[in-house]
Amino acid sequence: MIHPTAIIEEGVELGENVKVWAFAHIRTGSKIGDNCVIGEGAHIDTGVQIGNNVKIQNHALIYHGCIIGNDVFIGPNVVTTNDYYPSVFGDWKNNGRFRSTYFCKGCSIGANSTIICGVRIGVDALVGAGSVVTRDIPDGFLAYGNPARPIKEK
Amino acid sequence: MIHPTAIIEEGVELGENVKVWAFAHIRTGSKIGDNCVIGEGAHIDTGVQIGNNVKIQNHALIYHGCIIGNDVFIGPNVVTTNDYYPSVFGDWKNNGRFRSTYFCKGCSIGANSTIICGVRIGVDALVGAGSVVTRDIPDGFLAYGNPARPIKEK
Amino acid sequence: MIHPTAIIEEGVELGENVKVWAFAHIRTGSKIGDNCVIGEGAHIDTGVQIGNNVKIQNHALIYHGCIIGNDVFIGPNVVTTNDYYPSVFGDWKNNGRFRSTYFCKGCSIGANSTIICGVRIGVDALVGAGSVVTRDIPDGFLAYGNPARPIKEK
Repeated sequence: MIHPTAIIEEGVELGENVKVWAFAHIRTGSKIGDNCVIGEGAHIDTGVQIGNNVKIQNHALIYHGCIIGNDVFIGPNVVTTNDYYPSVFGDWKNNGRFRSTYFCKGCSIGANSTIICGVRIGVDALVGAGSVVTRDIPDGFLAYGNPARPIKEK
Repeated sequence: MIHPTAIIEEGVELGENVKVWAFAHIRTGSKIGDNCVIGEGAHIDTGVQIGNNVKIQNHALIYHGCIIGNDVFIGPNVVTTNDYYPSVFGDWKNNGRFRSTYFCKGCSIGANSTIICGVRIGVDALVGAGSVVTRDIPDGFLAYGNPARPIKEK
Repeated sequence: MIHPTAIIEEGVELGENVKVWAFAHIRTGSKIGDNCVIGEGAHIDTGVQIGNNVKIQNHALIYHGCIIGNDVFIGPNVVTTNDYYPSVFGDWKNNGRFRSTYFCKGCSIGANSTIICGVRIGVDALVGAGSVVTRDIPDGFLAYGNPARPIKEK
């Protein structure tokens, strides 16, 4: 199911049984596994890697440098980043500011969270809605806040 | 006024004099009262109930389980939720995690706020922009922050 | 480069070499300088003034009353405001609640930040991702948090 208003560029590797909702945009060179859902207005940037059984909710912005494992839930309006010191100047891919971000198997990111680039969200971790993630989140932990801190094991 | 790019599914109950802006999506089974404005890119999920004279600003995401009274202002990019422990697994409507959220008459939700499900935003309450609402907000109070705390009576 | 799904109203003053991505909307009476990029799903409201060499990233919402200088970076999902006490009632442009917001030359606003109206983001300032800006940010300072506080000179 690909909504007719969705934009899927050439050079995207789409798995089986992927749903893409209205106004979503999937850019070239990204790879999306089986049984994934890409929500309304979501943006999947070039080179993003997404595993199987992943839900990317409405308006989530997944930028170049994001690596997403299997069984991950990305909530609505979640925003990722890839430039630690964003600026209109310079070539962000080649100036030492670019960092990748890892969403490990089974983790969930609550709605409207902001993920600062360069972190690893651990296996089965849960980031509470509205958080700003600035550091790694350990496997299996619940974390939330601005900045997000690990609160307890789930 | 319904913008030609807006998507309004069958089975929506639209009141009189409703404006729907570009790239908005209103899902089946939702009910929208008279004199409402649904902003650009906003998403109104299945079963959402919206009263009269309500403004839903651009990109706001109003999910299943939200009940919105009359005269409510929902700011741009406000995100609601309905699953207290979001996960890619399970049937979120029937696993005990689903909670409704109530926006009482005359309340206003500032831009980019995140509303954790299960709360009641009181009559004429004001939630400051960028807040994360995790608990009920009393009638007539100004609240803000992450997490949002009642600050003073308006 | 104007994407065919973008909406550019009549009465927009567009500079040279402006790129406008999918599902963006630029409203009448706004002015956009040379070499700007307007991201996917971004909204540029009536009367907004944008200088040269500005990047407005995906889903950013730039409302009436925003004045943006040259060389400014506005991150994805950044939300501006223009009504200090938002409400569904009254004429927000003429009730004393409207305030302008200034983004000075060379400043950068991190992803998903919320800008409360009436502030001045200083020259070359950097607002960290996920911040809520409630006060002026001095020239050349890094600021972040909710509320955003100046942390150090860059």
